[in-house]
Amino acid sequence: MAEVIIRGGTIVTMDPQWSLETGDVACRDGELVQVGGRYVPQEHEYEILDAEGCAVIPGLVQSHVHMCQTLARGRADDLELLPWLRDLVWPYEASLEAVDMAASVRLACAELLLGGTTAVLDMGTVRHTGEIFAAAQGAGLRATSGKVMMDEATPDIPIPLREDTRASLDESHQLRKEWHERAAGRLRYAYAPRFALSCTRDLLEETAQSARAAGVRIHTHASENQSEIAEVERRTGLSNIAYLNEVGLTGGDVCLAHCVWVTEAEREILRETGTHVSHCPSSNLKLGSGIAEVPELMEAGVPLSLGADGAPCNNNLDAFVEMRLAALLHKPRRGPASMRAPLVLRMATQGGARALGLGDQIGSLEPGKRGDVAVVDLSTEHAIPASNPYSALVYAARASDVRHTVVDGEVVVRDRHLLTLDQAEVVSEARARAREVFTRVGRTA
Amino acid sequence: MAEVIIRGGTIVTMDPQWSLETGDVACRDGELVQVGGRYVPQEHEYEILDAEGCAVIPGLVQSHVHMCQTLARGRADDLELLPWLRDLVWPYEASLEAVDMAASVRLACAELLLGGTTAVLDMGTVRHTGEIFAAAQGAGLRATSGKVMMDEATPDIPIPLREDTRASLDESHQLRKEWHERAAGRLRYAYAPRFALSCTRDLLEETAQSARAAGVRIHTHASENQSEIAEVERRTGLSNIAYLNEVGLTGGDVCLAHCVWVTEAEREILRETGTHVSHCPSSNLKLGSGIAEVPELMEAGVPLSLGADGAPCNNNLDAFVEMRLAALLHKPRRGPASMRAPLVLRMATQGGARALGLGDQIGSLEPGKRGDVAVVDLSTEHAIPASNPYSALVYAARASDVRHTVVDGEVVVRDRHLLTLDQAEVVSEARARAREVFTRVGRTA
Repeated sequence: MAEVIIRGGTIVTMDPQWSLETGDVACRDGELVQVGGRYVPQEHEYEILDAEGCAVIPGLVQSHVHMCQTLARGRADDLELLPWLRDLVWPYEASLEAVDMAASVRLACAELLLGGTTAVLDMGTVRHTGEIFAAAQGAGLRATSGKVMMDEATPDIPIPLREDTRASLDESHQLRKEWHERAAGRLRYAYAPRFALSCTRDLLEETAQSARAAGVRIHTHASENQSEIAEVERRTGLSNIAYLNEVGLTGGDVCLAHCVWVTEAEREILRETGTHVSHCPSSNLKLGSGIAEVPELMEAGVPLSLGADGAPCNNNLDAFVEMRLAALLHKPRRGPASMRAPLVLRMATQGGARALGLGDQIGSLEPGKRGDVAVVDLSTEHAIPASNPYSALVYAARASDVRHTVVDGEVVVRDRHLLTLDQAEVVSEARARAREVFTRVGRTA
Repeated sequence: MAEVIIRGGTIVTMDPQWSLETGDVACRDGELVQVGGRYVPQEHEYEILDAEGCAVIPGLVQSHVHMCQTLARGRADDLELLPWLRDLVWPYEASLEAVDMAASVRLACAELLLGGTTAVLDMGTVRHTGEIFAAAQGAGLRATSGKVMMDEATPDIPIPLREDTRASLDESHQLRKEWHERAAGRLRYAYAPRFALSCTRDLLEETAQSARAAGVRIHTHASENQSEIAEVERRTGLSNIAYLNEVGLTGGDVCLAHCVWVTEAEREILRETGTHVSHCPSSNLKLGSGIAEVPELMEAGVPLSLGADGAPCNNNLDAFVEMRLAALLHKPRRGPASMRAPLVLRMATQGGARALGLGDQIGSLEPGKRGDVAVVDLSTEHAIPASNPYSALVYAARASDVRHTVVDGEVVVRDRHLLTLDQAEVVSEARARAREVFTRVGRTA
C-alpha cells in the first residue's frame, strides 16, 4: 500500500499530553508511522495531502447514528420521540427494501466522510443489515453496526418490524459471524436491541451474554424521554438504567445513546460499570427530549462521546454541529467555563474511539495507531483569526471546512471531493429511492 | 444598471401568504420586478444566476452584530458577560486603530455575505465609526450601524472608551448626518447606547429624543445577564426594561438585543410598545447568559428577529447557525412543535427587516421590494432528500451552501466567491491586524 503524507498543518494530536505538533502526519500500510517533523517517504509510491492553514486532527468518531434513516431527512419534524417512532420512523423502516437501504447508507457515508467523521457506531433496522455493511465498506467508512432487535409485541410496531425472540437473536449471531472484523477490521458488529420498551427481558439477557462471549459491543438507546422512562418503570418496576444493569446491559462494552434523564443512582451505575454514554444534543433538542446533564456525567467520570443520531431527528450527521452544541448547551446552567473546547473535541475523538472499543487504535494521532485523520481548513473567513485550534475547531469550523479525510490510511476525501463514491449518483439515487419509499409509506399508512 | 435574473430555483418568497414559486426572480435597477414565472430581459445587459437545485430566499437579516469585534474571534472563550467585557472586549475595542477597524469590518462583511446575510443592524465601538460605514459600503452590505455610546464613569471601562455625555451625543449626531441614507440608502445610522449600565440617564433620554426627531433607529442591549439586571435595579430602582421604557428606549423604532431575562410585566411593555427583540441564541449560550423565552415573546406578539452578536461570543456570524439553534433550543421546554422552521425563517427575514425599519423594502421576495436575495443550494449530501424547503433551510443547510448573494440588485457573491472584496487579502489583513491589536492589548493589560 502506498504511503500518505499530510503536510504543513497544525497537528492536534489529542494524545494524553494534549500535544500540538507541526510538520507531517504519515501513514504506511494504514498505520500512523510519524506525527510531526519532516517525513521522508520510505516507499516508491506516496501521496502528499496539503494541510497548509489547516488543523490535522484524529478522524471524528460518532458513537450513535442511524445510517438507515437518512432517506427520511426532513420528513419527521416537530414530533416527540414516541409519536416520531410510531407515525414516521417505524413505517419508514418497515417500507425499506434492500436497494433503499443501500442508498440511505451511501448518502449517510457521503455526508459523514465529507464532514471528517471516519468512524461510527451505527444502529440498523430489523432487515437488510448486510446492505449497511456492504455500503459502508464501499464508502470506506469505519463502521460498527448491527441489526436492530425489537421482539416485544407492541401494537404500534408495524408488522414487517415485529420479530420473534429466537429469530432476532439467531439473525444477530449470524450477522456477527458474517461481518465482524471484515474489511481488514474496518467493519465490526455490535448487538443492537432498540431500547428497553421494544425488547423482551429474555432477548436483552441473551444479547448481553452472547455479545460478551463473542467479545463484541452492545449499542442501545436509554432514558431519552420521560414517557419512555415512565413506561419502563411501569413494566419492570425499575428505573431504566437500573433495569438495563439488571439484565446485563451496562459495562465498558456497552454504549447507551442519550441518557437525558438520569437519576443520581443511575449516574452511579454508569460510573461504576464504565458504561459509555453517547450525547446527542441536536436530536435531544429537536425531539423536545431535554438536555442531558453532561457536565455532571463528565465530572462523575462516565465515559462520554458524541453522536448525531439519525437524519430525521437532527437533520444533519455532522460532528462539527454536535461539538459546537455540546460546548454551548450546558453553559447557561453550569457556567461559561464548563464544556471547554478541548474537552468537547476529546469526546468527539478519544471518547468515540473508546465507545467503539477502539481506544487503542483510533481517536488520537500517535505512531502505531490506525491512519484515521481529518484535515480541517482553519483559514476561512468564518474561523480566522482564532489563534487557538481547539476554539476554532469547536466554536467556528464547519463540516464543509474538511479538506481531506483519511480512513485506515486510505484517502477517502481529497480537496473536498469524495473518492470512494460518485457524489452526484449518491444524491440522485437517494432522491429517487426516498420518493419510492414514501410512496409505499403513504399506501400503508 | 444591468438586470439580474436568478433562474431555476424554488422561490421561498416569505410574503404574507407564504407563497412558494418556481421560475425566475428578476431585479432591475436594484428593485425586484418579477418573482416566479419566466422573465424576459428588458435591458440590453443582463446577468443570469443559476439556481438549479437551490432555494431562492430573501437575503437574511441579522438584527444584532458587532462587526468591530471580528478580530477578537476565539480570544474570549469561557467567560461570563461582565468579565468578558472588562477583561477582553473593552481592552480590545480600546486598542483598535482605524486600520484595524477596517480589517475587522471587512472580515465580518466577507463572512456575512458569503453566508447569505445581506443586511445587519450593527453596533460599533466608541471610535472609528466612519471606518465601519466605509468598509460596509465597499463590501456592498446593507448596514445600519452606529457609534457605541458609553458615558457612565465606571472604573472598569478603559480610558480610550470613556466618553463625555455631550461629546458622545454630538459625535453621534454628526455621524448620523454624515452616513444616514448614504450609498443609495444601503447605509443607515442607528443610535447605539451600549446598555443601561454604561450610559447616564441624560444620555439615554437625549438619545431617544434625537433619534425620534431624526427618524432613525435605536439599538441597544438589554437584560442579557442576571448580574447586569441586578445592577440596573440597584442603580435605578427599576427593572431594566421598565427603566428603558421610562427613558424612552422602547418602541417600534428600538431594537433590544438579547432580552434573556424578562418578567411578565416587561414582556407586556415590549408588546405594548412594539419594541423589537433580537434573539442571539449562540451568544446567550456561550456567555452562559441563559435561554430567552422566545416562544412566549412570539405568542405575546413581540416582534422578533435574530442576530449572531459578535465573533468573540459566538464564534461565527452565521444566520444559518442562529436559525437552527433558535428552532431547536426552545423545544425541550415548549415541545417539539414549537418554533417551527417557517416561523424561524420569518424571524431571519421579515423579522430582521422590520427591526431595521425596512419591512417595506426587504425581508420578502415581492415585486417592488429591493433586490436583496440569497440562493441556497439544497441539493447537497447533508440536505437531501428533504422535500420541504423550510425544513431544509433551517435544520439542514449551512452558510457554505449559499451559492449567490445579491444586495440591492448587485451581485456580491457569485458561485461562492465574493466579488466586492479580495478574499485572500481580507484574511491575511485580518490576521496581521489581529496580531498587532493583541500585542497592544497585552502591553496595556
